Amino acid sequence: MSLLRYDVTTGDWIIFAPERALRPSRQPPEKRPAATPALCPFCPGQEAMTTKEVFRISQPSGDGWLVRVIANKFPALRIEDDNHRVEEGRLFRRMGGCGAHEVLIESPDHEVYLGHQPTEQIERILSTLHFRFNDLMQDRRIQSIIIFKNHGEGAGTSIRHPHCQIIAMPVVPRLLRLKHRVAVDYFDQTGRCLYCDILDDELAAGDRLLVENEHYAAVLPYASHVPYQIRLFPKQRQASFGRADSRTFRALAEILKTVLLKLHFGLSDPDYNMTLNTVPRGDEDEEYFNWHIDILPRLTNPAGFELGSGMAINIVLPEEACRNLRRVAV
Amino acid sequence: MSLLRYDVTTGDWIIFAPERALRPSRQPPEKRPAATPALCPFCPGQEAMTTKEVFRISQPSGDGWLVRVIANKFPALRIEDDNHRVEEGRLFRRMGGCGAHEVLIESPDHEVYLGHQPTEQIERILSTLHFRFNDLMQDRRIQSIIIFKNHGEGAGTSIRHPHCQIIAMPVVPRLLRLKHRVAVDYFDQTGRCLYCDILDDELAAGDRLLVENEHYAAVLPYASHVPYQIRLFPKQRQASFGRADSRTFRALAEILKTVLLKLHFGLSDPDYNMTLNTVPRGDEDEEYFNWHIDILPRLTNPAGFELGSGMAINIVLPEEACRNLRRVAV
Repeated sequence: MSLLRYDVTTGDWIIFAPERALRPSRQPPEKRPAATPALCPFCPGQEAMTTKEVFRISQPSGDGWLVRVIANKFPALRIEDDNHRVEEGRLFRRMGGCGAHEVLIESPDHEVYLGHQPTEQIERILSTLHFRFNDLMQDRRIQSIIIFKNHGEGAGTSIRHPHCQIIAMPVVPRLLRLKHRVAVDYFDQTGRCLYCDILDDELAAGDRLLVENEHYAAVLPYASHVPYQIRLFPKQRQASFGRADSRTFRALAEILKTVLLKLHFGLSDPDYNMTLNTVPRGDEDEEYFNWHIDILPRLTNPAGFELGSGMAINIVLPEEACRNLRRVAV
Repeated sequence: MSLLRYDVTTGDWIIFAPERALRPSRQPPEKRPAATPALCPFCPGQEAMTTKEVFRISQPSGDGWLVRVIANKFPALRIEDDNHRVEEGRLFRRMGGCGAHEVLIESPDHEVYLGHQPTEQIERILSTLHFRFNDLMQDRRIQSIIIFKNHGEGAGTSIRHPHCQIIAMPVVPRLLRLKHRVAVDYFDQTGRCLYCDILDDELAAGDRLLVENEHYAAVLPYASHVPYQIRLFPKQRQASFGRADSRTFRALAEILKTVLLKLHFGLSDPDYNMTLNTVPRGDEDEEYFNWHIDILPRLTNPAGFELGSGMAINIVLPEEACRNLRRVAV
């Protein structure tokens, strides 16, 4: 059973999920299942080891699968739990762990790097995330959805077999509310979308633009929070990932593949997190936001300064990182 | 040369400090100086290896020192840099890396754990931090100060010899502004200090109270962001650490020693970060805040969910963590 508790000093909801202490990465190394395909619950032939399948794309032959979505075995949130808020005294607030936590298995292959997958397979993964996003949003208790990928142990992954995760939440994270408030203020002042203006200015400046095509652009943001942070923007503004035109996902797959290969060869396969940033329920048709993907390599470790201040110290300017990645031929 | 850049989407200032890429922890293991006291720049006899000494407490014999403060060799910010804001186009803002970055060496002993130090020595460390805080604040370009400690490689330390750090900044972190806005709203509604009410309610609830004495209490917060987070509150409200009554630092040293020993023995010397949370310049005499210390063990690794949402998944309830730590005799 999960629950959420409200931090009244910051406005953050914290998810308490004691069962996640049982995850493989929390076990001693000799007990972890990820080491070899023979023991991997995400490999073909071991489907019975996983929880119930939510979705699959089958092989054209009908024999086996290309992409699978399952419920996380150690869920942070669960659709069976309630979303009732309970006040404990004047300051403490909790609520039930209502939500969903799904895992998208990116390939039957235990080892394949996302950037090495064929473009069509990356497109399938994106389309599946898109489908799951909209399907989960049909439950009106879900207020926001976080899609993310952890690549490498340093980025927090517990199973080596390549996968993404989807967490559907009964609350809106304070960080999303902040970004939207900032973007609304900008819209009210200028009548324009902040994220579109940023993309325009990055395209004009040029020295942080890594790669672009007709529908998407990959930029190393001016105020990157970590070294080699890369942000993928759609060129056609759309507040919600759920409203994105899935016909452009081939172009997104192409650019994502290029970016990931440049990271892989340029920085020796760094650990990284990937996050998809979109609006919460109700804001899908707003004009002030543009959904985007962040790739956050784990080259440095946030320490006391970052935790105490909420600020970041970045040891690489994005212009320099961009120059280095441009030189990597893929 | 450092600089800061403003993230217009969140209101965060990011510090860019390319020289910090040269720090020992960024070097291959065989080149790091921290391995043995013979090569450690913080050990007695190697004082010439460090930058200029800012402050010291000498041994009563006059021979050698008990505590030293030096400038960080790889500073995030420097007092020589300017604090001018520069607009680059309509959206990009930067400023000079004006500030200070000091290191407090906690002991001549290369290996000693802070909790194993004598109470008087911990008191000396606290008094020195207090003195440096107020001294740095005399420069009116400094807007806020972050004091922190990184214990263990997993917590981001680059030199093993025990030390704390002080970063004085020309800006106020967005996270501090947020906390203060929340606390001001609470004060405007209730006429009371939010942090004092939280402490009162934690003392009344009791099941998250780890240890207290006349002047301080150590609590595992109701909505802890990480497992075994511990918060040390002064019982006598004071918005700024700079205004804290240094005559109570013996009591703070006692409680800090107890808490750190419980962590050390209860969790096998975990890596941890310690942060001191206080108000920025100008808010020192406000009634709505109470400075405090957070101890954040690094038992789990923030991953894509945390980075994308700004929320946290905590796998241990603070009541359980508190029960476990209470059982540890020190």
